[in-house]
Amino acid sequence: MNHNTPSNKGKLYLIPTLLGGTDTSILPPQLLQVAEDIDVYIVENVRSARRFLVKLGIKKIGKVIDELTFHQMDKHTDPQKFRKFLQAALDGQHIGLLSEAGCPAIADPGATVVRAAHEKGVEVIPLVGPSSLMMALMASGMNGQQFTFHGYLPIQKGERIKYLQRIAAHASKTGETQLFIEAPYRNRPLIDDLFQHLRPETRLCIAADISLPSQYIHTYTIAEWRKKKRNMPDLHKRPAVYVVGR
Amino acid sequence: MNHNTPSNKGKLYLIPTLLGGTDTSILPPQLLQVAEDIDVYIVENVRSARRFLVKLGIKKIGKVIDELTFHQMDKHTDPQKFRKFLQAALDGQHIGLLSEAGCPAIADPGATVVRAAHEKGVEVIPLVGPSSLMMALMASGMNGQQFTFHGYLPIQKGERIKYLQRIAAHASKTGETQLFIEAPYRNRPLIDDLFQHLRPETRLCIAADISLPSQYIHTYTIAEWRKKKRNMPDLHKRPAVYVVGR
Repeated sequence: MNHNTPSNKGKLYLIPTLLGGTDTSILPPQLLQVAEDIDVYIVENVRSARRFLVKLGIKKIGKVIDELTFHQMDKHTDPQKFRKFLQAALDGQHIGLLSEAGCPAIADPGATVVRAAHEKGVEVIPLVGPSSLMMALMASGMNGQQFTFHGYLPIQKGERIKYLQRIAAHASKTGETQLFIEAPYRNRPLIDDLFQHLRPETRLCIAADISLPSQYIHTYTIAEWRKKKRNMPDLHKRPAVYVVGR
Repeated sequence: MNHNTPSNKGKLYLIPTLLGGTDTSILPPQLLQVAEDIDVYIVENVRSARRFLVKLGIKKIGKVIDELTFHQMDKHTDPQKFRKFLQAALDGQHIGLLSEAGCPAIADPGATVVRAAHEKGVEVIPLVGPSSLMMALMASGMNGQQFTFHGYLPIQKGERIKYLQRIAAHASKTGETQLFIEAPYRNRPLIDDLFQHLRPETRLCIAADISLPSQYIHTYTIAEWRKKKRNMPDLHKRPAVYVVGR
């Protein structure tokens, strides 16, 4: 494994976390092996990072959580500060980067840390773990050879509808699958918009609570969804990934 | 875990595999737990699927590999045949879908199987495992909030260069990260094209041998790559993901 390569410099490990569940059997044993060598973490939230490390089994490898260093970051953190956090790696310590859920640096401020690591010559090691985007795309049955992830949609209703219609038309024309997410408390109005404003033949996958016991993943055309709507579970406040394609 | 939900129907499990390496510590224990319940597999190549299941530890759970059923598929397989393969699920057996490397149904014929499963009402369960795309994107330090995966590039040199310039201009304008792959034996000419034909300020991540001991992941601007080219390892025949952004 890469973290055993001899070098005087520490490395930046990108450590995926759970997607809101408690089942740690979805995490590779490698994560714990790597955590054995890490004393410094850069995280979005210190409390949930500690909780995650406890679940991962950090105590089993003889680590005392209060002796670890946690640097908290958010999207307002000055990039200069990231460079300071990374100094530990230049001094020979490994650093772990943790996201609130899933893969760090995908839809969180972690990308800025990774960028600073490349600039400083700190080796970056991505680890395997849950990615709600990949799991939704795999499970959608739609084209995985060409796809675009849009992140969050515009908040303003009119703009959001136009955006959805534009990307659905693009998917229909090119075959390129379109993925996006929404704040979980806005699932209901988003689903209403999708059912009302996309064309009947457009294919939509709704993937909610991915990897949790309550997981709900279905792909239908909009025409089919309209018929099934009455029997749909309420997805209010349940994290979801949406996939649109043909 | 979802595969314990009571139902008379079998489910389709999407099972990620290794990215060409031998270190099974990057695979979650869940994969083996799920394999305990699976006797039917849909795979790209029977020989390598058997090899993977042996590495995963299938013997530990008392499975005899010669008693498993393997259906082979490729991009020419008639979708009608996929529906026949899925009959086992309707009859109450769980089915595993395996790719040659990484996540099934992302850049392989598996998506057609998943689509047929949705049509037949077979529940689809994506499992956690190595995704070279996600790992490259995480490790690139580029924008992970908006990105596009293009699959393979056009083979014809002139077209390929135009395509690269077009997507790099799009990344520079919108901030949307661009990912693509290339057949490993074409890495050298592709890298030459990238270094020669992209603008000096464009940022490029080359992520080769992801998750292997020989892993090579670096992000520089094209101007920097041109200077470093002499000291670059030879990436001929080493699987790589390319990430372009600003």
